[in-house]
Amino acid sequence: MNVPHLLTALKGPMLDLERRLLEAQPTIEHWLRSQWQDRTVPFYCSVDLRNAGFKLAPVDTNLFPGGFNNLAPEFTPLAVQAAMTAIDKACPDARGIVLVPENHTRNTFYLQNLAALAHILRQVGMNVRIGSLLPEITAPTQIEVPGNGSLVFEPIQRKGNRVLVDGFDPCAVLLNNDLSAGVPDVLRGIEQAILPPLHAGWHVRRKSNHFAAYDRVAKEFAELLGFDPWLLDPFFETCGKIDFRGRQGEECLEGYVEEILTDVRAKYKEYGIQEEPFVIVKADAGTYGMGIMSVKDPSEIRDLNRRQRNKMAVVKEGLEVHDVLVQEGVHTFETVDDAVAEPVVYMLDRFVVGGFYRVHTERGKDQNLNAPGMHFVPLAFASPCLPDLAGAPDCPPNRFYAYGVVARLALVAAAIELEETEAAFEAAEAARPVQAARA
Amino acid sequence: MNVPHLLTALKGPMLDLERRLLEAQPTIEHWLRSQWQDRTVPFYCSVDLRNAGFKLAPVDTNLFPGGFNNLAPEFTPLAVQAAMTAIDKACPDARGIVLVPENHTRNTFYLQNLAALAHILRQVGMNVRIGSLLPEITAPTQIEVPGNGSLVFEPIQRKGNRVLVDGFDPCAVLLNNDLSAGVPDVLRGIEQAILPPLHAGWHVRRKSNHFAAYDRVAKEFAELLGFDPWLLDPFFETCGKIDFRGRQGEECLEGYVEEILTDVRAKYKEYGIQEEPFVIVKADAGTYGMGIMSVKDPSEIRDLNRRQRNKMAVVKEGLEVHDVLVQEGVHTFETVDDAVAEPVVYMLDRFVVGGFYRVHTERGKDQNLNAPGMHFVPLAFASPCLPDLAGAPDCPPNRFYAYGVVARLALVAAAIELEETEAAFEAAEAARPVQAARA
Repeated sequence: MNVPHLLTALKGPMLDLERRLLEAQPTIEHWLRSQWQDRTVPFYCSVDLRNAGFKLAPVDTNLFPGGFNNLAPEFTPLAVQAAMTAIDKACPDARGIVLVPENHTRNTFYLQNLAALAHILRQVGMNVRIGSLLPEITAPTQIEVPGNGSLVFEPIQRKGNRVLVDGFDPCAVLLNNDLSAGVPDVLRGIEQAILPPLHAGWHVRRKSNHFAAYDRVAKEFAELLGFDPWLLDPFFETCGKIDFRGRQGEECLEGYVEEILTDVRAKYKEYGIQEEPFVIVKADAGTYGMGIMSVKDPSEIRDLNRRQRNKMAVVKEGLEVHDVLVQEGVHTFETVDDAVAEPVVYMLDRFVVGGFYRVHTERGKDQNLNAPGMHFVPLAFASPCLPDLAGAPDCPPNRFYAYGVVARLALVAAAIELEETEAAFEAAEAARPVQAARA
Repeated sequence: MNVPHLLTALKGPMLDLERRLLEAQPTIEHWLRSQWQDRTVPFYCSVDLRNAGFKLAPVDTNLFPGGFNNLAPEFTPLAVQAAMTAIDKACPDARGIVLVPENHTRNTFYLQNLAALAHILRQVGMNVRIGSLLPEITAPTQIEVPGNGSLVFEPIQRKGNRVLVDGFDPCAVLLNNDLSAGVPDVLRGIEQAILPPLHAGWHVRRKSNHFAAYDRVAKEFAELLGFDPWLLDPFFETCGKIDFRGRQGEECLEGYVEEILTDVRAKYKEYGIQEEPFVIVKADAGTYGMGIMSVKDPSEIRDLNRRQRNKMAVVKEGLEVHDVLVQEGVHTFETVDDAVAEPVVYMLDRFVVGGFYRVHTERGKDQNLNAPGMHFVPLAFASPCLPDLAGAPDCPPNRFYAYGVVARLALVAAAIELEETEAAFEAAEAARPVQAARA
């Protein structure tokens, strides 16, 4: 295994934290097991982490992960085994699944992700068909996947309360489309299981719901292990009714930027950290790394120029940004070949199945790395489950154990978030005009 | 990954069989999923396979596998993930397990197996203690494991209806001791889960029960896929009241040897196979490769010399052999570095987690390889779950898929066998004198 070159600048409290996680492994695994006894685990999930040395925290939790092609291929069996467990729950008695992809059929990386995901599901023994929402897909369409054969996109169809693909009637629909544009009518009110559920889409999801749930999870977890939850949990606040272009609601943003910077300065002082605090301002419902900026002073909000305002004002599918999250920034002190890097951990069902470093040669340790120019280095994944108390806390297997733990805390938070948003979504769906529901 | 050099002499019906298994993967995986819906899967299991090219069959199914040290260490995460599922069932709400080993503390290989198994369980987050049945272990005793640190053996103790190890009260007892010598009183009637159950021990198990269950499983499976079950299933018969030293019951053995050789000759003729049929005669309750002989003519039974009779008459723990299995021999046409080899597949819960080749430089393709002088070569285990229809059926990943399928058929058979022997065991236990039950 080729282990990427890991560098962590700060060795103080983080090593202490990692050592505590390692020593508490039985307690942690037991606590995680107990979390899943009365919660529904999302089908899959990827979590972007930032490792500041003194702090390790999730900064983005994706319920429609799109980088399966970036996982080390040697560990596909781990993903297949985890997918078996997930499929057992969804389709104990059937073998057909329709995978609903994003609509960008010309993005090579995305197509490779789709091919990798379909491969995993086929290894589980599922018949997998790709049901596209694209209006221009009106018949089975073969699309080349550079370096990985081809995929057939087929139009997804509705028959009564079921969706089909060319007569193929699946037991479940697996969404790899984050529904930023809303719920397509073809998926409304179908009998088949939809994984993850419709309300996991970005038409419903809010980062603030996720981080509010994560906040509670991190507090309970940190209390169990007897340390400050801040070491795993970034401060955040939200502002509504923001209009970046119309300069509405800026006072709210400036106020919270100031407040969070003050709180972070106090924490840095408590732990003797010399770094300069920063804050991330991002769309509460945004994805794809869009609508994100890094701020070190409230005045930067006031002084945004027109180009910057336009960039913050819209996210994927051209959606206007109104709700904004202001979140403590977590430095990333990891580098791969001298470029700034952040780990992304992939989970299927409740199992960590791999991960990679998102690496950006043009960005700094206090910037968003999910931006054009990034590249990916697979995590050396013999290791995530193999911490070794005899080794140093910062040796890769031990660091990876810590990553797997924090990623799974975010997964628990995602499960809670989905529980808490389900009722409101169901009520809103029930209240839709009858015509639309029948469309 | 270092893929061992695989050679398969015959290319005919076997390739056809492997191709069918590959093509039927969704059907197979779906059928296997359905098998586990109303059956209890054993905690772990290893299956010795023989691949004759024209036939692929299990020849031994071990419910107390002892070769975890022979699995490729790169794939420990696969075992850890599978063990998580197994532990979830046994100890959803606890974190302590006592591992009960065999009594040979001076066998380096066995100690390495124990260390590997304990390592897997610790990665799941279990507190693992080794509770020994050895009378000479009266206090915690550190035992060196060559090349792998040390293990602490502690005396297993009884307190009311629970077993403890130095005050440590586990939620489950994991047996890695095959109970050839019977059920130790300390384990009788305890509240804690025992994995696998007591009646999986060789004091109850009979190979004939296992192969009778396998026979039904193979028939159902072969019918589902539309081929001759003989391709996966060796003929067998049993003789009782055998006394090798006293020359009792030999007519039964000779008769069945003749009968099976005749049946096999007919099958070989049907498939155009030029090999010489042989039969394996083995103790119905034996293990450790003891009490096994390979026979090509009924007269060999009559003509056994005294040394041979003595060898067949007793198995592990000095137990007398009375019940004998006569089973169609399956040639092994696989070789590793020119030595005869047979694959051994390891499973935890219902998941294939690895395997190795048992290799013997001094034995022939029609002999038992589980004998002094054998060595082990890990299976190249990136592959068991990764068959690729685009590749040739005999390319390693595809062959390994076939191995994983047949091993899992044997696992289903083991589950059925345990279901069917439970009631008789419980009744026998209930009928024991009260004093003994309280001991």
